[in-house]
Amino acid sequence: MKFSANINTFNACADRYVLSGYGERLDSDALIRAATQVPDLTGVELVGMWHVNDNNVEQLRRQLADVNLAVTCITPDIWASSKWGWGSFTSPDPAIRADAIREVQKSMGWAKQMNCDIVDLWFGQDGYDYPMQGDYQTAWDRIIEGTIACAEYMPDINLVIEYKPKEPRTHCYISTVGKTLLLIDKVNKPNVGAMIDVGHTLQAYEDAAESAALLDYFGKKLMYMHFNDNWRLWDDDMTAGSVHTIELLELLYWLDHIGYDGWYALDIFPYREDGIRAATESIKWIQGLYGLLDKIGRDNITSAIEQGDAMQVSSLVRTALLGNS
Amino acid sequence: MKFSANINTFNACADRYVLSGYGERLDSDALIRAATQVPDLTGVELVGMWHVNDNNVEQLRRQLADVNLAVTCITPDIWASSKWGWGSFTSPDPAIRADAIREVQKSMGWAKQMNCDIVDLWFGQDGYDYPMQGDYQTAWDRIIEGTIACAEYMPDINLVIEYKPKEPRTHCYISTVGKTLLLIDKVNKPNVGAMIDVGHTLQAYEDAAESAALLDYFGKKLMYMHFNDNWRLWDDDMTAGSVHTIELLELLYWLDHIGYDGWYALDIFPYREDGIRAATESIKWIQGLYGLLDKIGRDNITSAIEQGDAMQVSSLVRTALLGNS
Amino acid sequence: MKFSANINTFNACADRYVLSGYGERLDSDALIRAATQVPDLTGVELVGMWHVNDNNVEQLRRQLADVNLAVTCITPDIWASSKWGWGSFTSPDPAIRADAIREVQKSMGWAKQMNCDIVDLWFGQDGYDYPMQGDYQTAWDRIIEGTIACAEYMPDINLVIEYKPKEPRTHCYISTVGKTLLLIDKVNKPNVGAMIDVGHTLQAYEDAAESAALLDYFGKKLMYMHFNDNWRLWDDDMTAGSVHTIELLELLYWLDHIGYDGWYALDIFPYREDGIRAATESIKWIQGLYGLLDKIGRDNITSAIEQGDAMQVSSLVRTALLGNS
Amino acid sequence: MKFSANINTFNACADRYVLSGYGERLDSDALIRAATQVPDLTGVELVGMWHVNDNNVEQLRRQLADVNLAVTCITPDIWASSKWGWGSFTSPDPAIRADAIREVQKSMGWAKQMNCDIVDLWFGQDGYDYPMQGDYQTAWDRIIEGTIACAEYMPDINLVIEYKPKEPRTHCYISTVGKTLLLIDKVNKPNVGAMIDVGHTLQAYEDAAESAALLDYFGKKLMYMHFNDNWRLWDDDMTAGSVHTIELLELLYWLDHIGYDGWYALDIFPYREDGIRAATESIKWIQGLYGLLDKIGRDNITSAIEQGDAMQVSSLVRTALLGNS
Repeated sequence: MKFSANINTFNACADRYVLSGYGERLDSDALIRAATQVPDLTGVELVGMWHVNDNNVEQLRRQLADVNLAVTCITPDIWASSKWGWGSFTSPDPAIRADAIREVQKSMGWAKQMNCDIVDLWFGQDGYDYPMQGDYQTAWDRIIEGTIACAEYMPDINLVIEYKPKEPRTHCYISTVGKTLLLIDKVNKPNVGAMIDVGHTLQAYEDAAESAALLDYFGKKLMYMHFNDNWRLWDDDMTAGSVHTIELLELLYWLDHIGYDGWYALDIFPYREDGIRAATESIKWIQGLYGLLDKIGRDNITSAIEQGDAMQVSSLVRTALLGNS
Repeated sequence: MKFSANINTFNACADRYVLSGYGERLDSDALIRAATQVPDLTGVELVGMWHVNDNNVEQLRRQLADVNLAVTCITPDIWASSKWGWGSFTSPDPAIRADAIREVQKSMGWAKQMNCDIVDLWFGQDGYDYPMQGDYQTAWDRIIEGTIACAEYMPDINLVIEYKPKEPRTHCYISTVGKTLLLIDKVNKPNVGAMIDVGHTLQAYEDAAESAALLDYFGKKLMYMHFNDNWRLWDDDMTAGSVHTIELLELLYWLDHIGYDGWYALDIFPYREDGIRAATESIKWIQGLYGLLDKIGRDNITSAIEQGDAMQVSSLVRTALLGNS
Repeated sequence: MKFSANINTFNACADRYVLSGYGERLDSDALIRAATQVPDLTGVELVGMWHVNDNNVEQLRRQLADVNLAVTCITPDIWASSKWGWGSFTSPDPAIRADAIREVQKSMGWAKQMNCDIVDLWFGQDGYDYPMQGDYQTAWDRIIEGTIACAEYMPDINLVIEYKPKEPRTHCYISTVGKTLLLIDKVNKPNVGAMIDVGHTLQAYEDAAESAALLDYFGKKLMYMHFNDNWRLWDDDMTAGSVHTIELLELLYWLDHIGYDGWYALDIFPYREDGIRAATESIKWIQGLYGLLDKIGRDNITSAIEQGDAMQVSSLVRTALLGNS
Repeated sequence: MKFSANINTFNACADRYVLSGYGERLDSDALIRAATQVPDLTGVELVGMWHVNDNNVEQLRRQLADVNLAVTCITPDIWASSKWGWGSFTSPDPAIRADAIREVQKSMGWAKQMNCDIVDLWFGQDGYDYPMQGDYQTAWDRIIEGTIACAEYMPDINLVIEYKPKEPRTHCYISTVGKTLLLIDKVNKPNVGAMIDVGHTLQAYEDAAESAALLDYFGKKLMYMHFNDNWRLWDDDMTAGSVHTIELLELLYWLDHIGYDGWYALDIFPYREDGIRAATESIKWIQGLYGLLDKIGRDNITSAIEQGDAMQVSSLVRTALLGNS
């Protein structure tokens, strides 16, 4: 497993009440220094325009290479200012739609320059807030059209759709694994796939393992992973494994089972926690649970799943975790 | 609008605590008499084996014709006994899978004999209850295979997938509108489409109007409608319009907008209410809200949606509903 | 009914993604001008330190009086900066606890100077984020102690507890109507009561009408009301009546029934909407639904509730709203 | 820890679709034999009238004593037939209210005869289904009055209120820990306390540990425990520890911390699982996690909680569970 983290993990996290953030705001140098202090972290995610731009891309590339941090994903910023508030790819304003596509393409270019082959397409502002507000079919036309325009721009950079049921809109158009696969199918480009953000699956009442299995089933479309946890009703962006232990174990089993070989990236918001400790704990939970798969024996799990025998799984996991047989 | 109701609407509804039901158990004759007492109800849904079988199909057809009730949908029973508890189309036991397919095919035959062109495919028992229990990819293989076998059996009978996130399993495989469209696409038969059960969309944090628009968008796949309401977290099967007034209005607007011309069927469980009153109220709410669309003016709604102007929609609906401008 | 609104209704609303807000940031003068443009709005809420402080309290009082706006509630800021991130009244740091109490007391003083008798106690930061993090019993000791200290400071100013299940913490200690009444009982001061924020009740799977009835039942403790709406799972702070029409109608019936004579205040976050329109729509929905109570006849509602006859209620409301009998 | 289980654990569980149950229906003798096969199970719960009545109480007492099974709790049946559908203690019909009280009193008598000091008061049918249906204040009058009548009937038998947010009603009146404590306070009898059903707390977005701490805080009112698990949105009644591992660990820590010395009872519905295996797994998870508290060191947990240091807790738990430091 190769571990990455959004570089913002180490910065002050803000919410709608504490807009200035709960901790100290750091510059990029300090964020990178923080990243190097997390054991086994060998990659970082960047946000386009926030961390990387035309002027600093080469310098940043060297700076990260010097500390042996790969860039694993770049996320274009098409959601973090008022401009995008009424949509990016689905904005009613054609000029904003064009700008959104351009932002994605710029991030694709920076990704290429930094030897990163993943760009995250998160349509956070593309949705609706009220009943009778969404123009549902037009929205899909525009998302499909925009995604094709991006995919064709640079075929060797992979676009990974990051679905999410809600927030910042009360309803996002690309909200579930099913809709994500429909979009991928319509776009029909080899460089368009999906990522799973574990917290988003919980919010959607999906089981992340099932969603990974489905993305694999429909043409090996799982290209990236975001780990975090929450209390199932909101994207709390807590440390990985902090609430849903068994489901995380199941996810790790299935990622192995389908031959996922991408990054294990963290997307957490440690509002009140130290970012370095939060990232470290997240990685250690993932590593520890991954190790548990060996202890249990993958074949034993496979066999119990084939029989759908929940009590056998319970016994296997419990014995390995707690030692009481 | 043509209204139908599941004939069980008029029977005693049971839950896991009151297994004998909250009201009086009626025979089919009494259920049909009850249905005739609901104004504007011109169709009924039947459950295969419960109400219709090889012996009574012709008699029942005549009996319903005599009171001018059409059969609008037959639902095969592949979920209501212990036999199906570990799955119907996805059962680990090939004999049970074959039986499930046969049950669907029998219902297709009865539908044909009764001039009904809709058979409901509800995979209630096909899912999982515990983490690490589901055999996700195998399940999809089996659902696809079984659905094809049914579709090919009688091409002039439409199979409508009724998706639902959970219950009776804690997780059903065919849980969302997105997964339903993926299944329809894989099966790829003209006589396989979808129904929307409003309560299931609420439970899935879908907006029923959006789901209808999507089923239309991906090839005109909306073939049937189940109306009911709930408190958004569980399939409470309450009367239509009792909780989510505005969302029901939006749904009616979109059904019109996409040219839906199928049945407006009720799927309610009036546990403690009189079934005739519950069905009557449900129909009257739908009719009343449908009438409101005229009062508002569909073009006014269309225009507000194109602009995504939620406050304009609010003003239009409020003025029409409450009269204060 | 007397209507008020948080003065921030008219300012740019921010979320954790768009920290600079979706609209234009306005100064207090502009916010007040905006408030005067909302029909039937005769009061405003202020946040301590944000809008009112020792230096401007007298000037602000005159400024609002000049435009006939009453101050209906002051909310001390004990949640909007990093300082309060680990709790206000429950902070592990006694100095921060003392500061929090002082902030509340300052707001009580300003309220008095502005002829306002309501100060809002919202313990947004007093809770926990992770399992095994909360020090539950100590937290209650501190909340009780702090509330008593505030209540005794100025007995003619009412403190209204604003409960909320979560956000910004994943779990807030004072989360439900039940816990609020327990706190009020322990504190046992005549000037400590509760407010209901409609959105918070939805988030708690409470029915706001039931919560109002309970606050009345346990000693007439309902002193203030916040109106807004959401999709039941998160505090979306949408305009009043936009989603839960019937439940709002029920709430208005019960407020009348228990003789509530306080303010009908708006607490909405119109992120992407114009604040003046959003406030106007909210008030008009409340007024329109209130008017509907006359049309239905309060006695008819009372009688249907006494019989628990949901279908009778359905018929009454539908006929009044939609005209089809 | 002393373990008990509802004797129905071993019987066929039914839901609203499979009314005849998923397994084999057993008589009482067979249920008792099954109970004896669960390691470390030394008690059982009975339902009044289902398992125990005036005619068999003495025989059943001897039968259980012979196999060393204590009766730990009797639950009066005031919810499992149509008669109670519109409420038990809150029924609009005074005759039904009187009957409900009588049923509870009968169960208290049987409990006494069987050396059991706990009777479960679960008001499952006392609530409402629709908006504008509940007669909220009258309901509380009746619940208080009825509970007092029961408490006074036999002061040496403890009545434990089992709160639950919903099901079978969409809203139950006694829904949260806060309302439960309000009821206990109003009733004000030493033999009226509460039980926590873990699944009900999850459904209420409570943390069971916090609810236990509160019941202790407000006068040592926690008298009984029901263990099970679910997916947080519905009372799925799964085996203990199957989903929420860390939260169960926290609960066990707090039960110890507050000196809980009652039964650790299972209330699970193993619809498709073998009851003996399901009970065995549940007990072993509780035992294993309880053992983990020793491994971690209770003082270490106490200290981390006092500091609210979630990352320290994460590290302690992870190291003990997974061994990677």
